[in-house]
Amino acid sequence: MATFSSTRTVRIEWGDCDPAGIIFYPRYFEIFDASTALLFERALGMTKFSMFKNFEFDGFPLVSARARFLKPTRFGDDVTVRSTIEFGRSSFEVEHRLSLSGDTCVECSEKRVWVVRAANGRLKSHPVPEDVLAKFRRQ
Amino acid sequence: MATFSSTRTVRIEWGDCDPAGIIFYPRYFEIFDASTALLFERALGMTKFSMFKNFEFDGFPLVSARARFLKPTRFGDDVTVRSTIEFGRSSFEVEHRLSLSGDTCVECSEKRVWVVRAANGRLKSHPVPEDVLAKFRRQ
Amino acid sequence: MATFSSTRTVRIEWGDCDPAGIIFYPRYFEIFDASTALLFERALGMTKFSMFKNFEFDGFPLVSARARFLKPTRFGDDVTVRSTIEFGRSSFEVEHRLSLSGDTCVECSEKRVWVVRAANGRLKSHPVPEDVLAKFRRQ
Amino acid sequence: MATFSSTRTVRIEWGDCDPAGIIFYPRYFEIFDASTALLFERALGMTKFSMFKNFEFDGFPLVSARARFLKPTRFGDDVTVRSTIEFGRSSFEVEHRLSLSGDTCVECSEKRVWVVRAANGRLKSHPVPEDVLAKFRRQ
Repeated sequence: MATFSSTRTVRIEWGDCDPAGIIFYPRYFEIFDASTALLFERALGMTKFSMFKNFEFDGFPLVSARARFLKPTRFGDDVTVRSTIEFGRSSFEVEHRLSLSGDTCVECSEKRVWVVRAANGRLKSHPVPEDVLAKFRRQ
Repeated sequence: MATFSSTRTVRIEWGDCDPAGIIFYPRYFEIFDASTALLFERALGMTKFSMFKNFEFDGFPLVSARARFLKPTRFGDDVTVRSTIEFGRSSFEVEHRLSLSGDTCVECSEKRVWVVRAANGRLKSHPVPEDVLAKFRRQ
Repeated sequence: MATFSSTRTVRIEWGDCDPAGIIFYPRYFEIFDASTALLFERALGMTKFSMFKNFEFDGFPLVSARARFLKPTRFGDDVTVRSTIEFGRSSFEVEHRLSLSGDTCVECSEKRVWVVRAANGRLKSHPVPEDVLAKFRRQ
Repeated sequence: MATFSSTRTVRIEWGDCDPAGIIFYPRYFEIFDASTALLFERALGMTKFSMFKNFEFDGFPLVSARARFLKPTRFGDDVTVRSTIEFGRSSFEVEHRLSLSGDTCVECSEKRVWVVRAANGRLKSHPVPEDVLAKFRRQ
């Protein structure tokens, strides 16, 4: 399957920044989490909320993440986040590149697993549904 | 019913503060939300997680809140939060007083409603269960 | 001076919501803080970051806030926030109305004070600069 | 230099968790950031706030981070975070192990750089001051 990408612009807010005047780095992961949700929304034509109703789906929690912070950003910056997904069987990887005026500020790689809730209430991995993959293929 | 109070100490963290070097005020409401949960935990002898299993309970969302910010706090401050609850029938009010070295920094009043999930999935108000009230009375 | 208003759309994100599936209420105050900053940006033609360079200005911390939570919102909702400001001498009030599909979900009133940093490093109130007021009047 | 470690207990709060009922993963990075600050506080005998006054120091922003999420945690969990630091010249690495009842839930490795603010206002790397290193050695 070809990879699928999605790009959005995010305003870094005052409340995202710390006393050094730059973004508090956990806020980047909040941005990336929403970027992953938006990527699915664009490919599937429905919000994450609707995914719970339309697919065998109870979330896609992280297995691992790694990030490099190359240049700081600060409140008032309108940054660009380009997110690219690549599917495995019941997992997928999303690469996020956050840039400002063309300069890369953060590179992040997330590995996530598609989960469904088992009878005992626990979340367990599950193959990404074929109709999800089909919609990505069609893009 | 007599009122019930609970006091705890909270460290204001670097990541709670904004570029002015003082706490970003929405963080106070995070602190108060956790303080309300702790007040129930102390009265009932169980965490909020266990409340979902032991009572007709699906949360206590806010109806209203008001706060006065009297003195700023900053990272490294160990503040004291004293929370006092008073019950109505299916609602309750919690007053939080956040202080540093005896000086009041924030006063907040929350009104919350006890809710259960109706058959249609919506949250609706519900009288605070008698066994909950009984445990508060016993304190 | 006539009041000045600003409207924006905000997506409620997965990470803004709690285990009840609805927004965790401190996130509303994050939204309102950014809405106040945007209101100034639109009136002054510069970001909050630039305000620090262009005016006698070291922030506009809150004096008080009150909010009523009328209807819950959840991830995937695109809510509208309409913010209206009214100036006093060294303080101002902002009323925020957050709505979904025309229904008011939250009403919030913030009172904030314009501050500058005194020689001792403390923040103290200061009259809102005349050139700030002039730009609002011109809108 | 021998490594230095610090252990603390953290309560996972309702507001840290998402609609799946488990912690929203950016909250882990907030926990780790505060754990790193506490590690310095214990070694130096002063809060991060005091470090700004006592050392050539304007923060220790991240260069990179990587984390593995092995088991989810949820509100009400009291997790243990053990943080271990190892110094380079102007950078250092902190390994965090977050566990619940002895089971590792998250492993995170942060690389940070010691910075001072240059005359132009920018943050630039700076060797970790010798008196900081000396206090760590003495532990």
